Amino acid sequence: VATDAVHDSGGLQILSVGECRALLAAAPIGRIVFTDRALPAVQPVNFVMDDGCVVIRAAPGSKLGAAARDAVVAFEIDDFDAATRTGWSVVLVGHACVVTHEDELTRLRELPLHSWAPGCRDHFIRIMPEMITGRRITPVTEPGHR
Amino acid sequence: VATDAVHDSGGLQILSVGECRALLAAAPIGRIVFTDRALPAVQPVNFVMDDGCVVIRAAPGSKLGAAARDAVVAFEIDDFDAATRTGWSVVLVGHACVVTHEDELTRLRELPLHSWAPGCRDHFIRIMPEMITGRRITPVTEPGHR
Repeated sequence: VATDAVHDSGGLQILSVGECRALLAAAPIGRIVFTDRALPAVQPVNFVMDDGCVVIRAAPGSKLGAAARDAVVAFEIDDFDAATRTGWSVVLVGHACVVTHEDELTRLRELPLHSWAPGCRDHFIRIMPEMITGRRITPVTEPGHR
Repeated sequence: VATDAVHDSGGLQILSVGECRALLAAAPIGRIVFTDRALPAVQPVNFVMDDGCVVIRAAPGSKLGAAARDAVVAFEIDDFDAATRTGWSVVLVGHACVVTHEDELTRLRELPLHSWAPGCRDHFIRIMPEMITGRRITPVTEPGHR
């Protein structure tokens, strides 16, 4: 545990944007948060980072593909260890858009981004982060903490 | 893999509400999805199930505590294995409210729900599910799938 770590008002260590980007580059799965018919919605997806953006694949006509069309969404990754009650999370908020430029599509099709789910997922959605935040829960040492 | 499993249009196996509730009962961490100043927000939290509801603790005055005050929220749990590209997720949508009845608070304080993060988290938030859905990604056997 770094002794010069910065903590938020809730006692969680604040991750730098650089740490957040490194965690994003290594995570296989994230959760996209969007609005579906005025209700909060969340869906896990596999993704890659490309040029600082989250890129995911969606099926044409899917709820996700429709919801992420020119919308502000959140995207979350995390990892936790129940045994030590430690972990971290990174959340970015940004504008999602369906990629339509043919040159960009050609490039994105070469990325190591293969949907885990079966079926055709030929739409590429790019989320450009406008805000990236991360927090880490470190082991608690205070006696009597609950 | 059950041969009589029901799949959705995207090829994912549909979990029954019973399976979803069993997964909820066993998961230590979930992600609450809410709206924060008109933007989508998501935050991992540890939780317990109590009488069919998700119960979490929040700090008085926290963003989460404020956002979950009489709001419709989503709550997600999942588990994935990157090696086999399989996994599952459960999402519930429901009304969140801060518990204020003293009798109920007394009971909730006895639950095995101890915040992983340091600091006082004396507000109990209950999410009553109005909709529970779950999906499982099973191993893909089709040749040529990507």
